[in-house]
Amino acid sequence: MVETMRWEDGKLILLDQTLLPQKKEFITCENYIRVRAAIKKLEVRGAPAIGAAAAFGMVLAAKEASNRPAFIETLARMRDDLISARPTAVNLAWAANKLFALAEQRNKEEVAPYKIVGELEQMAKQIYEDDIAINHRMGEFGAEVVPENAVILTHCNAGALATCGWGTALGVVREAHKQGKVAMVYSDETRPLLQGARLTAFELCEDNIPVTCITDNMAAWTMKTKGINFVVVGADRIAANGDTANKIGTYGVALAAKAHGIPFYIAAPVSTFDFSITDGSQIPIEERKGEEVKQFRSEVTAPAKALTFNPSFDVTPNELITGIITEHGILRAPYTESIEKLKKLTVNS
Amino acid sequence: MVETMRWEDGKLILLDQTLLPQKKEFITCENYIRVRAAIKKLEVRGAPAIGAAAAFGMVLAAKEASNRPAFIETLARMRDDLISARPTAVNLAWAANKLFALAEQRNKEEVAPYKIVGELEQMAKQIYEDDIAINHRMGEFGAEVVPENAVILTHCNAGALATCGWGTALGVVREAHKQGKVAMVYSDETRPLLQGARLTAFELCEDNIPVTCITDNMAAWTMKTKGINFVVVGADRIAANGDTANKIGTYGVALAAKAHGIPFYIAAPVSTFDFSITDGSQIPIEERKGEEVKQFRSEVTAPAKALTFNPSFDVTPNELITGIITEHGILRAPYTESIEKLKKLTVNS
Repeated sequence: MVETMRWEDGKLILLDQTLLPQKKEFITCENYIRVRAAIKKLEVRGAPAIGAAAAFGMVLAAKEASNRPAFIETLARMRDDLISARPTAVNLAWAANKLFALAEQRNKEEVAPYKIVGELEQMAKQIYEDDIAINHRMGEFGAEVVPENAVILTHCNAGALATCGWGTALGVVREAHKQGKVAMVYSDETRPLLQGARLTAFELCEDNIPVTCITDNMAAWTMKTKGINFVVVGADRIAANGDTANKIGTYGVALAAKAHGIPFYIAAPVSTFDFSITDGSQIPIEERKGEEVKQFRSEVTAPAKALTFNPSFDVTPNELITGIITEHGILRAPYTESIEKLKKLTVNS
Repeated sequence: MVETMRWEDGKLILLDQTLLPQKKEFITCENYIRVRAAIKKLEVRGAPAIGAAAAFGMVLAAKEASNRPAFIETLARMRDDLISARPTAVNLAWAANKLFALAEQRNKEEVAPYKIVGELEQMAKQIYEDDIAINHRMGEFGAEVVPENAVILTHCNAGALATCGWGTALGVVREAHKQGKVAMVYSDETRPLLQGARLTAFELCEDNIPVTCITDNMAAWTMKTKGINFVVVGADRIAANGDTANKIGTYGVALAAKAHGIPFYIAAPVSTFDFSITDGSQIPIEERKGEEVKQFRSEVTAPAKALTFNPSFDVTPNELITGIITEHGILRAPYTESIEKLKKLTVNS
């Protein structure tokens, strides 16, 4: 399986996902500014992967801040800077804040900054390792609801490349494939940046899981004519009522799944839940530059004069979601209740 | 307004639509084989434009056949060859058969082939001129149901470029714009060949009608967040019950429009109706080569090993269609009845 990132000699090595599937090149991040740039440019992407990258970014930030007079104030500014790289995926803030909270606590206890850096490094490594373990647990829970002879549709990339390894939605697919249940995976190409064609198809091909590429506008017709019987996607932020922000296009896929009576599942770890917001209307939706829409890499596709709208995410309302697969099991409607239970479970743990 | 085709000195001059919006180049077709190739390669596309191009193609075929011993048998083979270029749009067969029927009739009457060629040329020119007039009538009927401050979504290109001029769906938009009703047009880019970005946005920019480009997977979210209050698209074949084949992705747009309570209209001339088939399941759906899905022009997007599914069209069931705008007025459900009336009207005329 492809490796998304690794921590080596105090540096974060990232696979440059913008070049896949044609080139496998790695980026060496020696400071948090480079990590921030990688997140912003989508060299690393996918909510859990962004979370882990941000954790390592915080280690690099702390190292830099430890040489400055106002350690914790400097680190706070760097954390805010990191978090501002992308607004929608909550895992970024979740990880950065988790490391910052530790740094702040230890700083209050007058632990020396260089020692704090070491503790942050341990925590970041733990987040990385936990993420892989969490994905395997989600995969096991999720595979239970995948039918035999599954013809699965997925959108964007919620795979090994979107995580530290194994994947959320594709973790479910991988586990179901291990169990011999997967007949075919249809992968929406996911314009504008083609994570479905470039990353999901690439990952599944590498693992010899059968995959068919379609353009996004073929999803509904594929459901109707190709026997799709299971849809699973990842998430970037889930509100307390189950409304789920995920890559643009997810909402349309969910509407089409509903119309065809096909189960529609979200796979996401607890770190993707934002218990502080009551519904999806409070999720900030990133808008990126219009050139992404009017170009296909170097190929210009639309006239210069035409306007653009380029939301990176949309929100799927809870009533379209059959279940949310987490590392603690599958949540079902009413989500306000099941998510409240999840919150208590994880706050107490 | 941009010119799709013209008949000049016994040759068919076609705007090469594969090069838009970057280049405006014209192709000179001196024989029917070149017309067939242009239809197959989508240098000319859009059901009514294909119909008119096929009519001129038949003139060129007849000219060629008139120098051969078995005039009408040769022409029949050429007609079949032309029709086989693309299977879904019924206007192609409609026009080719219309010209062939005239040739066959006049041949029975022992009219000299060179004279028949002249009559076919008149008929092809008439089809061309009628098409523009028909589009204007559709535009007028359609504009009546466009709301004030319309925020319109359209898919693919059913514009001047898809017809001999003015457009079907975009004819409605143009007329509504003349009446001051159009606040914004959202144009789905329409992968894999991007007719929405390349052609619709281009046409509307040329006419100073406000247009915003989106990727196909943004349609549902745009409906939810941008106040879309009218959807209009063209058609490639309409069955006797109103089921409508149109560019792939139309079905997903129709499902999303239904979910948001947005009126969803088809705009198509009588030549797009196939009265011989009872429902959409009988419409042949063209599948094109997988490279279109895994590439855009020179840009490769997916791994070589990945499979593809590339249907060029889908079928929107009649229950998702608010109305079908024709040159004889707007058809409403129950479509079996309204289409039966249309058939009687046009067969008698």
